[in-house]
Amino acid sequence: MNYIAVDAFGGDYAPDEIVKGSIKALSADNDLAVILSGDKDKLSKLLRQFSYDENRLLIEHADDVVGMADKPSLALRKHNSSMAVGINLVKENRASAFVTAGNSGAAMALSMFRLGRIKGITRPAIATLLPTLQGNVLLLDVGANVDCKPVNLLEFALMGSVYVKYMLGIPQPKVGILNNGSEPGKGNQLSIKSYDLLSRSRLNFVGNVEGNEIYKDKSDVIVCDGFVGNIVLKTSESVPQVIAEFLKEEIKKSFWYKIGFLLAKPAFRFLKKKVDYEEFGGAPLLGVNGACIISHGRSDSNAIKNAILKALKFSEEDINSKIENSVLKCTTLQKYRKVEKDES
Amino acid sequence: MNYIAVDAFGGDYAPDEIVKGSIKALSADNDLAVILSGDKDKLSKLLRQFSYDENRLLIEHADDVVGMADKPSLALRKHNSSMAVGINLVKENRASAFVTAGNSGAAMALSMFRLGRIKGITRPAIATLLPTLQGNVLLLDVGANVDCKPVNLLEFALMGSVYVKYMLGIPQPKVGILNNGSEPGKGNQLSIKSYDLLSRSRLNFVGNVEGNEIYKDKSDVIVCDGFVGNIVLKTSESVPQVIAEFLKEEIKKSFWYKIGFLLAKPAFRFLKKKVDYEEFGGAPLLGVNGACIISHGRSDSNAIKNAILKALKFSEEDINSKIENSVLKCTTLQKYRKVEKDES
Repeated sequence: MNYIAVDAFGGDYAPDEIVKGSIKALSADNDLAVILSGDKDKLSKLLRQFSYDENRLLIEHADDVVGMADKPSLALRKHNSSMAVGINLVKENRASAFVTAGNSGAAMALSMFRLGRIKGITRPAIATLLPTLQGNVLLLDVGANVDCKPVNLLEFALMGSVYVKYMLGIPQPKVGILNNGSEPGKGNQLSIKSYDLLSRSRLNFVGNVEGNEIYKDKSDVIVCDGFVGNIVLKTSESVPQVIAEFLKEEIKKSFWYKIGFLLAKPAFRFLKKKVDYEEFGGAPLLGVNGACIISHGRSDSNAIKNAILKALKFSEEDINSKIENSVLKCTTLQKYRKVEKDES
Repeated sequence: MNYIAVDAFGGDYAPDEIVKGSIKALSADNDLAVILSGDKDKLSKLLRQFSYDENRLLIEHADDVVGMADKPSLALRKHNSSMAVGINLVKENRASAFVTAGNSGAAMALSMFRLGRIKGITRPAIATLLPTLQGNVLLLDVGANVDCKPVNLLEFALMGSVYVKYMLGIPQPKVGILNNGSEPGKGNQLSIKSYDLLSRSRLNFVGNVEGNEIYKDKSDVIVCDGFVGNIVLKTSESVPQVIAEFLKEEIKKSFWYKIGFLLAKPAFRFLKKKVDYEEFGGAPLLGVNGACIISHGRSDSNAIKNAILKALKFSEEDINSKIENSVLKCTTLQKYRKVEKDES
């Protein structure tokens, strides 16, 4: 049995959708057990509405909650929050991974602080899977590290490659650097130096990826600092909303537009699903010594189910050992570390 | 009469669409005269097809062309290119502004090199006007400066405010910093320090703007370094294309979707126009000692017409003197410069 800890009180629709999502995940995989962290009385009462395998759905009591607007510093002090208790289950090896739809900054801080880092990784990163014309692309970092060194981008590239290889089954993931130009030598200081480092590694490095190439399958993994990554991610998420607003205004102007839109509506619904990041089941925090999947705050039960199944696969594939191995075998990284050490 | 120099051989559809666009612009404003730079024979031959006021459409011969893929260093050496000749017309005060749909990196390098900078501005920036839910927002820099200091972002903010105030008629433009979080103290080193600087200025500073707020009218001007700005701009431009591709695939699946889409098609066309950056008539290069408007490479005659009219307004409003004034009056900037000078 593989135990996954789930923050029952994190997210806009907690605890109801979190509980429902957990039960859905249990039906999808018989090797899975879920430990819900949170107020025992409230959860027990809620669970009475459902039928489920009691041996595979446990509760770990926590009497506090990290608010969506809590600063990470405050979250770190809430030792008995549903988030802290859930992460502790991983630390104590009672669960193999943790899932939360709560405050992502807090989840990141608590995971890093309580679980520590994988050997050889200096900066954990948040990775997000995005839909592309032909498949998917993993973008990292999208917010954990706002100021980065080139060696951090190499770490991101190694972690991203392992993740995509084993979670998505892409044997030799293509890795690119997010940049403002395509040729070598283009970009800011960080991207130029990272280019040099990545091109000397054994990664399947395909060079620079421009903003308009992110969704066009130029690479399977795109690395950047968390400042740029976060802005690009949030911009990408908002553009379809803005287009929908413009379209709504236009459609109001004619009866035939309205009819046309009604007929084509299911196509739009599918589209929404396709570009809806929740479908992808949350963003892994790569590089921490334990697994943590951060799902959107507005996750419904399906998003939670997907995040739990992703956490399960993350654990089953033993992604962290593979990352550790990949870092150890990367001579470019080892050389860089040696030079850094000699210089200091 | 106000003379605008136009690069007749820059852009994917040059010289035909450039010439057509120039003639359209002449019909739109009687105070305008256009000087086309480029091969005299070819242009004379082309112009025979049109009727226009010969006193207001002149040709300045140039026998070379900057290619779309030429590196800026090569472009700088092509002294007799249509681009160099056009920019020289501004330098020699024979034209008050220059418009090109050619190689934007080359246009930037040539303008900076030949025209120099406005007094008080250390880094010129490329500014792009984007459509928002309620109006527009000016994003700068989108590619001229990949590594910036906080004082550069203050310069961008001053230039952007003047531009939006006089070109769009917004009396007190709201200025924001592109960031990965909304609260003060969020962001990378550059954005945190820039926040401090901008909040001490007399600008109408509204704080940080996240990626998902760019198109939501939180501010009229958004400043960032050219690395982030370029990536955000290109990402924004590509997302609607990607959505259109997804939608096309979906619509193929049902007869009724197809009918619906056909009925609603004019609404989509309007939408395309709304989010089509060409409609906005090109991006001004702010901070150079002269006016340079860089239009998209794929500009058609309407985009060129809009760019020329924008250049005309830029000149009539005397934007550069207003920028110079604004910089002189900004005590925050002057203090920063004094400290910098004392320290060196």
